[in-house]
Amino acid sequence: MSHNSNLLHRRERLLGPNMTTFYSDPVHIVRGEGAWLWDADGNRYLDCYNNVPHVGHAHPKVVEAISAQAATLNTHTRYLHEGILDYAERLTGTMEHDLDTMIMVCTGSEANDIALRMGRAMTGKTGIICTDNTYHGNTDLVSHLSAKKTPIGGAVDWVKKVPSPDTLAPLGGSAEAQAQAFADEIQTAIDTLEAEGHGFGTLILCPFFANEGFPDLPSGFLDPTVEVVRRAGGIIIADEVQPGFGRTGRHFWGHQRIGLAPDIVTMGKPMGNGHPVAAVVTRPEIMAEFRNRFGYFNTFGGNPVSAAAAMAVLDVLAEESLVENARDTGDYALELLRQLDHPMIADVRGAGLFLGVEFARDGDTKRAAPFCAQLVDEMRNRGVLLHSVGRYYHGIKIRPPMCFDRAQADLLVETMDAALKALPV
Amino acid sequence: MSHNSNLLHRRERLLGPNMTTFYSDPVHIVRGEGAWLWDADGNRYLDCYNNVPHVGHAHPKVVEAISAQAATLNTHTRYLHEGILDYAERLTGTMEHDLDTMIMVCTGSEANDIALRMGRAMTGKTGIICTDNTYHGNTDLVSHLSAKKTPIGGAVDWVKKVPSPDTLAPLGGSAEAQAQAFADEIQTAIDTLEAEGHGFGTLILCPFFANEGFPDLPSGFLDPTVEVVRRAGGIIIADEVQPGFGRTGRHFWGHQRIGLAPDIVTMGKPMGNGHPVAAVVTRPEIMAEFRNRFGYFNTFGGNPVSAAAAMAVLDVLAEESLVENARDTGDYALELLRQLDHPMIADVRGAGLFLGVEFARDGDTKRAAPFCAQLVDEMRNRGVLLHSVGRYYHGIKIRPPMCFDRAQADLLVETMDAALKALPV
Repeated sequence: MSHNSNLLHRRERLLGPNMTTFYSDPVHIVRGEGAWLWDADGNRYLDCYNNVPHVGHAHPKVVEAISAQAATLNTHTRYLHEGILDYAERLTGTMEHDLDTMIMVCTGSEANDIALRMGRAMTGKTGIICTDNTYHGNTDLVSHLSAKKTPIGGAVDWVKKVPSPDTLAPLGGSAEAQAQAFADEIQTAIDTLEAEGHGFGTLILCPFFANEGFPDLPSGFLDPTVEVVRRAGGIIIADEVQPGFGRTGRHFWGHQRIGLAPDIVTMGKPMGNGHPVAAVVTRPEIMAEFRNRFGYFNTFGGNPVSAAAAMAVLDVLAEESLVENARDTGDYALELLRQLDHPMIADVRGAGLFLGVEFARDGDTKRAAPFCAQLVDEMRNRGVLLHSVGRYYHGIKIRPPMCFDRAQADLLVETMDAALKALPV
Repeated sequence: MSHNSNLLHRRERLLGPNMTTFYSDPVHIVRGEGAWLWDADGNRYLDCYNNVPHVGHAHPKVVEAISAQAATLNTHTRYLHEGILDYAERLTGTMEHDLDTMIMVCTGSEANDIALRMGRAMTGKTGIICTDNTYHGNTDLVSHLSAKKTPIGGAVDWVKKVPSPDTLAPLGGSAEAQAQAFADEIQTAIDTLEAEGHGFGTLILCPFFANEGFPDLPSGFLDPTVEVVRRAGGIIIADEVQPGFGRTGRHFWGHQRIGLAPDIVTMGKPMGNGHPVAAVVTRPEIMAEFRNRFGYFNTFGGNPVSAAAAMAVLDVLAEESLVENARDTGDYALELLRQLDHPMIADVRGAGLFLGVEFARDGDTKRAAPFCAQLVDEMRNRGVLLHSVGRYYHGIKIRPPMCFDRAQADLLVETMDAALKALPV
């Protein structure tokens, strides 16, 4: 039995079946540095996918912050500590719209679980709207928003899913009509929730529509949607787990990029460079309503080590000008990707270090899914790690650590060019 | 404005209102070591309360494990890694009853949120039974079990709360009758859930009844309860967040101490000595049902750093014989506490390093609550940190790091003796 089959066998025995791995031949990663990963046999991979190690795998400054604080004190927020306060001040300083208060938790799922309850507390309504091709986390409540995983107990009728915006197949039939068409879909969902007696409380969306395949949308795209939601008295949650922390290069937050003023912002994955930390940011009156109604306390949430890890990420982003790097390297990589020549490439798009290539076979995106899966494996075999995205997993998602440089962009695109040429169409 | 009022003001501004702190005069802790904590003014406190720093505050071996792994690699379980597998093998090796598979998550709340869904997946029923004086976490689903916090949206009728066992006021009127009386209460709740159409799926309890004030209960106490639950086809979750990892001195798990064979075991707080890590352990067929039905994935769950932190805790427990220490120092401290002489002491009890003093005024526990709150503050002012527990917060909970020693037990009890004498009855 090979080394990897041994590991896979142990995984199934100890962790259970149906645990997804990336790639037909899963990778046994043992070490990381910057945008590089190494497997147990010493093979090196270029990481073009992981946004959790936001400022680079094993960044020494984040490791040092975690180590130093863990060696000093790690406790909870029923004692006073400046770490969480300094971080809250710094984090909320990156946002406008009176988004001035924070709850720190451990996962994006916990953050969205809270945000949805804030919406319920503010509106008194249980109805939630999300897109039909999204993922916001894995708690019982949040799992009801998932497009691709049926929650335990089945779907609930107080969650309505609207068609997501799309580049190749825009709602309303054209890029120009899409903003209003999306708002119209939300209006219909609101009307249904109200008619069914749940009432409409909360719209939750990723302002970059990351899982939806990040269609190119102009700033102001959500203006008609906001109008519809405001008229109905609803709350808007911007889930920044993917586009946040400067990922898109020209804005620190996805909601700033699309020109949205959300009521609640949630974040997770990249926040602590891998340390389990996440947060909810909202206006003081929403925070007060939630805290007074529920009295939320999270033992690990906001502990000094998590706050130190999160602060170090903000420090490194600034010191190494990584948002600017995401813009510059992202623009450079996007230009290179656009020069790729392959009959199945239907679109190349993205912002900063969040890029994608969408495939179609004879104009049909669904039929491109098997090819895309082959390409993902072929890239892995050639030492470049990325993965698929989109309604049919028919596109490539490129979302490397923010320290990704031009030489690495060259390697990525050269490898993709070779892989595309090697694969049968 | 004093230093602490400044911090409290910043807290309210940045984190919102109604965030509980311990003590009328909250403590600003800046450093910890073993069972000692220091505040910003250099004052030293004996930590007799925190179970999260299970093997001692800032234990160098755990810090080193976290630092070394964070400097090497921190990624997710879609790649293969031996850390989570080695830990799962070691952890499940401490349990019997085919409890052989694990999901690693970040918080006890996430663990219980999964466990409740496992119960639902296995039984197809939504009804849950818990005690009327418990706490199992803060997600939307799990918050419905809380005795003291009304969930957002109000209570649900598919959770039934049964009276918790008690030492001073045993169910059924006597210690002997209590086991059957508790089972009878559960039978009534089952019947109600079935009659109301929810069906009975899951019983969740802390096998030490920690939040219920850890009444002294014999091994076998839950036998009649298990019979009732099995007859109804239900699932039993043992929440080991508090009694687990050897806390009670003579058993590694609370369910072993009380002689219970649970279907699912959840754990959290002490597992990573403060690092946000938690887990669900269950039988292979339950794990398979959950994983096949839902396809659970948790980005931070089971990452190599969390696995390393958790493994280091098991290593230190063994190397420093801390379970044995919990037994020996616990027995010693219990004996000392029993020598305290005060008219309001109604009972002294516990196991290992999980001890308590229950107070009553003229036989009325509720009327002892203000006195107990005063005692908690008085102890804090004398440099010993502990807190209250029980239905009316009328008892003292003593739950120090597992390295707590006899000299520290002496200091604890001497300080409590002096505090009791200083307070007006």
